Amino acid sequence: MERDFNFNVLDVIRNRWSSRSFKKKQFTLNDILPLIEAARYAPSAYNEQPWFFLISVTRQENEKVIDVLSESNKLWAENASAFIIILARKNFSHNNSFNRWHFFDAGTSFGFLALEAENRGIAVHPMAGFNHDLLIKNFKISGDYDPVTVIAVGYRDIPDVLPEKIRINEKPGLRNALSSIYKKIEDI
Amino acid sequence: MERDFNFNVLDVIRNRWSSRSFKKKQFTLNDILPLIEAARYAPSAYNEQPWFFLISVTRQENEKVIDVLSESNKLWAENASAFIIILARKNFSHNNSFNRWHFFDAGTSFGFLALEAENRGIAVHPMAGFNHDLLIKNFKISGDYDPVTVIAVGYRDIPDVLPEKIRINEKPGLRNALSSIYKKIEDI
Repeated sequence: MERDFNFNVLDVIRNRWSSRSFKKKQFTLNDILPLIEAARYAPSAYNEQPWFFLISVTRQENEKVIDVLSESNKLWAENASAFIIILARKNFSHNNSFNRWHFFDAGTSFGFLALEAENRGIAVHPMAGFNHDLLIKNFKISGDYDPVTVIAVGYRDIPDVLPEKIRINEKPGLRNALSSIYKKIEDI
Repeated sequence: MERDFNFNVLDVIRNRWSSRSFKKKQFTLNDILPLIEAARYAPSAYNEQPWFFLISVTRQENEKVIDVLSESNKLWAENASAFIIILARKNFSHNNSFNRWHFFDAGTSFGFLALEAENRGIAVHPMAGFNHDLLIKNFKISGDYDPVTVIAVGYRDIPDVLPEKIRINEKPGLRNALSSIYKKIEDI
């Protein structure tokens, strides 16, 4: 099965997918900062900009990140060139009340980041599978922030370099039908 | 003050901003569906795709949406051609446990939607200011979903058509400095 498109959308949206196979290549901070710049220009509730990014590019840093991943993610993520950890500030700065949109806004910023990455030929793979408490402890995350996701970053490689048992899933994921994800308000 | 860019990023990211001034133009469902198609191809935790979109394009539907907005948003949103309400499903389908990333994933899908809109010359403005309980009641939202945001949609117009007191803010919003939103893991 291949992805179906009912409308022409941006190439970066059409071509992006969360690959697990990465080329061996050393990244520097300057390879990552354009992605953070893209994330930075996301809109957010009250322009709060609740996002914060921890960046890992050296072997030593990457090993620290891999330590907090789930076993199933460790299988492939050890080949990533870099990682970005997204944190979201829980409260609004202007009145210290809970920001109900902190994850939503972090998501928008990740959406911008992911498409800027695709634009640069860089693959990013966001992971939900990580040890939440260990991440907070190892990276000394303040109680003002929630850890949201850990993103593996690198140049996409062919599936063959992956362990056999995960190789079969190394292809763009499918989506629910367009008709199943919306409703017209007059039809409610 | 104007926006500063440290790196070249996609034009759709650079040029997008949440305007309040819209041209008088009738939208149809087919103007909106390409934006939903873009949102549909966002990645999500376990490919859950927790997003759902309520679409409003007729005058009657739009009035129902405007009814649930905050007074400060009503001032300008009545000029929007269409609205999209984003809902996020609370629990995972595969095991019915709480999906900690439902707002994050909805945010990623909105990021894709917003950039596809910009690509089509359409402006979108996400709003946090709405009556949460009234939205749930008026649009018969199931308890399985959280209302996330109401998005005004239209073709950007000049600021002059806005009421004077909000006209002054009709320009691209600024952002915190790039250097203030990230840290290298080795510097923690």
